[in-house]
Parts: sequence; C-alpha cells; structure tokens
Amino acid sequence: MKTPDTLYVDGMESGSFDSGTLRAIRSGQVDCITVTCGFWDDAVESLDAIAKWRELIEANSDVAGIARNVQDIRKLREEGRTAVLLGFQNTSSLQGRIRFVELFAELGVRVFQLTYNIQNDVGSSCYEPADAGLTRYGREVVAELNRNNIVVDLSHVGDQTCRDAIAASSKPVAITHANAASLYQHPRNIADGTIKELASRGGVLGCALYPNLAGPEYSKTLDSWCEMVLRTADIAGIEHVGIGSDLGGSTTEADLTWMREGRWTRTANYGAASAASPGDDDPSWFTSMESFGDIAAGLAGKGLSSTEVDAVMGGNWMRLYSEVMA
Amino acid sequence: MKTPDTLYVDGMESGSFDSGTLRAIRSGQVDCITVTCGFWDDAVESLDAIAKWRELIEANSDVAGIARNVQDIRKLREEGRTAVLLGFQNTSSLQGRIRFVELFAELGVRVFQLTYNIQNDVGSSCYEPADAGLTRYGREVVAELNRNNIVVDLSHVGDQTCRDAIAASSKPVAITHANAASLYQHPRNIADGTIKELASRGGVLGCALYPNLAGPEYSKTLDSWCEMVLRTADIAGIEHVGIGSDLGGSTTEADLTWMREGRWTRTANYGAASAASPGDDDPSWFTSMESFGDIAAGLAGKGLSSTEVDAVMGGNWMRLYSEVMA
Repeated sequence: MKTPDTLYVDGMESGSFDSGTLRAIRSGQVDCITVTCGFWDDAVESLDAIAKWRELIEANSDVAGIARNVQDIRKLREEGRTAVLLGFQNTSSLQGRIRFVELFAELGVRVFQLTYNIQNDVGSSCYEPADAGLTRYGREVVAELNRNNIVVDLSHVGDQTCRDAIAASSKPVAITHANAASLYQHPRNIADGTIKELASRGGVLGCALYPNLAGPEYSKTLDSWCEMVLRTADIAGIEHVGIGSDLGGSTTEADLTWMREGRWTRTANYGAASAASPGDDDPSWFTSMESFGDIAAGLAGKGLSSTEVDAVMGGNWMRLYSEVMA
Repeated sequence: MKTPDTLYVDGMESGSFDSGTLRAIRSGQVDCITVTCGFWDDAVESLDAIAKWRELIEANSDVAGIARNVQDIRKLREEGRTAVLLGFQNTSSLQGRIRFVELFAELGVRVFQLTYNIQNDVGSSCYEPADAGLTRYGREVVAELNRNNIVVDLSHVGDQTCRDAIAASSKPVAITHANAASLYQHPRNIADGTIKELASRGGVLGCALYPNLAGPEYSKTLDSWCEMVLRTADIAGIEHVGIGSDLGGSTTEADLTWMREGRWTRTANYGAASAASPGDDDPSWFTSMESFGDIAAGLAGKGLSSTEVDAVMGGNWMRLYSEVMA
C-alpha cells in the first residue's frame, strides 16, 4: 500500500529509546521521527543529551540516522533508514541566551517547543491560570528559530502565547502533538480558532495518539482515532493535519515523574493525566510503533483518498519541514 | 618583501579584542591568528564566548573571518582578510565530558590548551610543585582532540603532562606560546628535552613576545628577540619554530586579575609576572600588531634565508594546521 513516494512522519516522540525501540519504528516503516532530547534540561544537560542521542543513532546506523534538512530525510528514506530530527520540548537549554539558538542549530537541533509545562522566559504554558502572551525575549527567540531553520513547536504552550507566536513567526509553525479541544476538552488541546490561525499561516497540527490527549472515546479503536483525525481536518483543513504520537519510547515511573514534576514542584503532579487516573498507557490498538502503518489503512477506511492519506501520514510534515529548513 | 605565498601566523593571542585591534592585526599583514576565547570558563560561559567572538568577527568581516581548516585560512588570505582560529587556554569548558570535544569542534573550536595555570582533570600545570602526568581522562581528551581535528596546545602545561601528551597524541602537537627554559628560566618555559620530543613528533613551538616569558635581555630589541628565535631553532630545528605572541588584544587590570586569579584563589597571584614586577607591558619595540612584519625583517637581518623566515613567520604553523585539521 505504501508507495515509494509516500513518507511516514511522526511529528513528536517521547520516552526512553534503545535499539529495540528504533527497530520497532523502522518495522513500522516510519521514515522520519522527531525525538524529545529534553524537557527541563539546561544547556549542559542538553549538550549531554545531544551527545547521547548521537551515540544511540550511530550505534543503530543500520536503521536510523540524524537528519538536518529535508534532503537528509529523503536520502535516509532511500537507504531504508529512519531520519531522526533532534527536538526539545522546552527552551530551557538556551538559559536566556538568544545566541544559543544558532549554536544548538549548528549541533543539529531542528525542533524547539517554546515552553513545556510551566511558564518560562519565552511565554506561558497551557497549564498556567493566566497567559500574558509571548514575551519580548520570546519574540526574539521565534525570529532566531526562523533564521536558523528550526521548527517552532507550540505544543504545551498557553493559548495567547501560541497565537502570538503563530503571528510573530515568519515561517509556518507546528503544534507537533495535541488534539482539538472542541473534540476532547483538555488543557493541552487547542482551541478551534487557534488551529485555524495556525493553518492559515501554513502550520501543521500533529494529532496525538497519547490517550490522555485523545480522550477515552477517540482512543478506543483505530477507527475512532481516525474519526478524530477526520474531524480535526474539518477544522484545520486536510493539508494542515499530521501525526504526532507523543509515544515511541518506553516510559518508566521515574521518566514520568521527571516529565511531570521536573525540579519545579514539591507536590505530586500528573501532567496530562490526573490523580484519579495517573496512567500513561498506550491505546490498546497501538502498543508498538510497528503499528504505525495501520493508521494509513484506518484513514483510507474512513474514506480518505490516497493523496489525503499520504498528506496526513507524512506529506504535510514534509511540506512544513521543507519551508522551515530551507 | 612579503610574497604572495608567504603567510604570517600568530599561534596565540590574548586580551580584549575590538574593531581597532583586528584592524591593527590586518595592518600587520597577519594572515591567521588563534584567539583566546577563555581561560577559566565552564561550558555555558564558553558558548557565550564563542557567540561573542562570532559577532565580533561578523561585525568586522571586511578584515577578518573565522576559519575551520587550512582551506579557509588560504581563502581568507586571498580575500585580504585575517583568519581567526577559535582557541581556549583550558579544557574547563568540557566540564569533564569527553563527548563535548566533538560538540565544541562542530562549533568551530580549533585549539584547546590542556591546562591553564592550575592542575585540572586532564593533567598538571607548569606552576604545580608536582606533576603526575596526563590522566586517564586526559588521554581520552587528547585522542578525542586528534579525532576532531583540534590542535592540542601544551603551553602552561606541566613538563611531565606535556611529555605524556606529546607521546600520546597521534598528530603533531603545539606549544603555542612559550620559550626555551634554557634561554630564559621561567616555569612557563620549556625544557630542551621536551622541545626536542615535541619537534621529533612534528610539533611546533611558538616563541612568545610576552616579555615575562622572553626575559629582559631577549625582550630588549627586535634584534635580541630574533636572536632568541635563532637559538630556539638551534634546539628545535628551524622547521619547528613559529611565533605565538601571547599579545594582540588590550589588557585591563580586571582582565589581568581574571587571567591570573580566576576563581581559584583568595590570594593575589601574578601569573607569569611577580609581586616585585607585576606588569604586563609589551616589548618597547613591539607596541602594536602592526609591527608583526618587522619580525620578518629582523630574522632576515640575523642571516636566515627567505625560506627560513617564511617557515618561522607562518609556514611551520600552516604545516602543523594542515596535519591536524586534515
């Protein structure tokens, strides 16, 4: 079913990766993934993480390679390898230094989410009670990300900051892993108006497989999740919808605690989950990245044309990447 | 007198640089300089310094450009610009991380001195009462510098550590700014035996203009300093002698205190100077980098052939750079 011109792209993956994980992704025929190199990390920790990712990919160079642009992604695809884009779900690694954007870009970072779960010097997170929007430094960061061919990622970002960043960016921006709030109400999900603004500037929303963001109904079956994608396309337009699984790696209890609490709180925090349901389970129909291709069949089963399926499975991400990483 | 094939190279410069300093260097027809981006700096401070140097060179791109290899140096020379190699007089920026060598290399660093004025995790400095030699981590650092085309600089390094590093390195190494201790006794200057070992492995010693290292007699006049160079060549061989002025920038009292005391002591420290003579004056005959070319005339006046003059003025450094930065 997958043609030589089709690329499967996962806009954001999280968790702990090893050789087995990377081979499952390869078996799933996923041609490009963005990995999370850090959530809360400072500059030195981020350099450590980049170095660690380089070694992991080098040790698995038969199935994966680090990509810095669209040409790299296509070349790796021809070689039957998965392209890995290095991403961060925070700008904490910059430590307030505008000039560090260029340095991290040179070290291969291609995706920067503006905030993770708490407000920072760039803007507000989706969990804050109030959102004062993109800061003055934040505007400089967006411009610098644009200049350095790095994807601006607005997942986890507060709504006002998100809209400010969409308007401020000279290139299309991404929400790599979130769903429409009108389909499932959740602080991490995105208002229809914001999705439309993102789309009007050429951006892409990566529909999340993560059940805490898709909600119980849409997470139930492949068919119901694909139904959610179609409804998201009704809001955004089919050219602006992709996949951002927010899965991919394994996640231990320690990983979860770090992702949710970092170093910012003395209190238990449940991130996108809740005290009543603190879990982090994958959907029952998607327990391994080997199943990634099933989504294409699911979307076709809902009546999408093969062109539309290709767009959602990776074509839309590739268009965004080619505009951002020119 | 300077032919199109002649390159003037200064193996190490220190101090605070600005547009005026860079223009003086250009007026002195110096084709390549290594600048000191840091003495005591940790990773984040070093990234700051690299970013600052990029901006300074960018703002003066009519007279200078950053070089990453010998091709860059030659191209900049053809364009009438001075090539700047980014150097550090310490390995403190690595913060004990072997993997950071590759990352700093990718950001353009081309010279790493193993230690500055105190012992570190790599080895001992020339000022320590005892020197246990190159450490296990130090051996890994030397190998990693070799692999990443970075010059191993052994100025300021203790004698045993220095000899260990010469033996450990798979590529020729440099002592970018020091003189022969047999000509002027000083902790920073190098024993004849060590110079011979350096030379036997293809290394280069950069004779220092800095009067605290050349001593009062050899600093007195251009002729006496050139006499010191000739005597150094008697020890090392003319193919292994270059220039490392240790000058170039301006140096304030605050700069001097930082260089000498860093954050390691509560006590006044005089670095290469002394309490009796704490100064940092340039030689009376060399008060600006505009005078750099005068050294060529001085060396010719002492009877060196034009081939020998070219070798000392930059040819030997270029040979080392081409072997290290291949």
